[in-house]
Amino acid sequence: MTEIKLLAFDVFGTVVDWHGSIMREVEALNLDIDADAFALAWRAGYAPAMQRVMSGELGWTKIDDLHRMILDEVLKEFAVTQLSESEKSQLNLAWHRLDPWPDVVEGLSRLKSRYIITTLSNGNISLLTDMAKRAGLPWDCILSAEVFRAYKPHPDTYLGVARTFDLTPEAVMLVAAHHDDLAAARECGLRTAYIERPLEYGENNIKNVSPRPENDFHAESFIDLAGQLNSNL
Amino acid sequence: MTEIKLLAFDVFGTVVDWHGSIMREVEALNLDIDADAFALAWRAGYAPAMQRVMSGELGWTKIDDLHRMILDEVLKEFAVTQLSESEKSQLNLAWHRLDPWPDVVEGLSRLKSRYIITTLSNGNISLLTDMAKRAGLPWDCILSAEVFRAYKPHPDTYLGVARTFDLTPEAVMLVAAHHDDLAAARECGLRTAYIERPLEYGENNIKNVSPRPENDFHAESFIDLAGQLNSNL
Repeated sequence: MTEIKLLAFDVFGTVVDWHGSIMREVEALNLDIDADAFALAWRAGYAPAMQRVMSGELGWTKIDDLHRMILDEVLKEFAVTQLSESEKSQLNLAWHRLDPWPDVVEGLSRLKSRYIITTLSNGNISLLTDMAKRAGLPWDCILSAEVFRAYKPHPDTYLGVARTFDLTPEAVMLVAAHHDDLAAARECGLRTAYIERPLEYGENNIKNVSPRPENDFHAESFIDLAGQLNSNL
Repeated sequence: MTEIKLLAFDVFGTVVDWHGSIMREVEALNLDIDADAFALAWRAGYAPAMQRVMSGELGWTKIDDLHRMILDEVLKEFAVTQLSESEKSQLNLAWHRLDPWPDVVEGLSRLKSRYIITTLSNGNISLLTDMAKRAGLPWDCILSAEVFRAYKPHPDTYLGVARTFDLTPEAVMLVAAHHDDLAAARECGLRTAYIERPLEYGENNIKNVSPRPENDFHAESFIDLAGQLNSNL
């Protein structure tokens, strides 16, 4: 069995708590709206927006710009009209300021001692860099859809990581809290580790985090994953 | 005057001592050749090889592969015939194991507290990542010619950094030990800092490191640069 050399991490939901962080930023603006619903609506626009890029309807557009297009729609939907251009632009950058789950910094530090650890996110490079700098995420490398000019789940992203590091796909493991992302990586020959993030969509929408047998690993946290990998080598 | 937000670092010669490190690796092989001359010959093939890519004679080729093409030529030139394929392949990866100059880790750590610090190197992503992991270089981000599909001094590389971070060119400063690299960055509107690396080509080829007035900063080391930037803000 090929040794795993590199761990590639999904970011939104897996590394950081987008729902709680976006709620926090929205609440701080005192807009008198349902911040929970607002965060969910903003995030719900994400997959369809990337689909518009991947279908060719939009040229290459980075997530910062997609987030802004969705934000403008969601603000209309929630009848928010009092924000200035500069406030909207600041709010859009909330995605650069997402907080990590509590186990992340310690877990990544442990995993880094044995593996190359990189992001593999649809988030753009500056978003991922700002996030890492603010939260102290010790990545060895920032890889993004922006590098491969394709959004996950396109195979060019998963295979792009392997090619970038001259590794076979099975020497790379995707770590993610989403079964569809993991399934697409597995199709490309990568190994997969599922991370339980039951609160990804907030306390009012607890996520089913039951194990699925297709994944090579199933862990409660990055610290749990580090422990399992130590005993599986 | 626009505030500098991001420092982009040239790597070979500026961050790491390629000459001394390659000599060390070549000497360890006991090939009974002039390791100083061998290191210089290997490096001398670098600019012409990138030129073949940029002229379109070769398709996009990463530095690992260019280094290997040059290595095969230099081994012939030095009449080295006893290396196995695996030994040649290991030697080629010497560029992933270059040692930083003594001031680099402390200097980068200081600069990181105030600026985004990224590589901007013609070296490929895996080379830069392996190097950083081995030497403890605390980059916020790994940017490479490989991301922009163009080698320095092509403007797409310097402007690519600014665009990636949604910055104006004058909010980005290139830090390098080479005046030609700095001149090309300046043409694109970036600020420039020259770093003295008199031993870049070894003790037998001391480099002229006299200041040139075109650069915004001239520093003996990264620690010196950190000091100057603190007093210039």
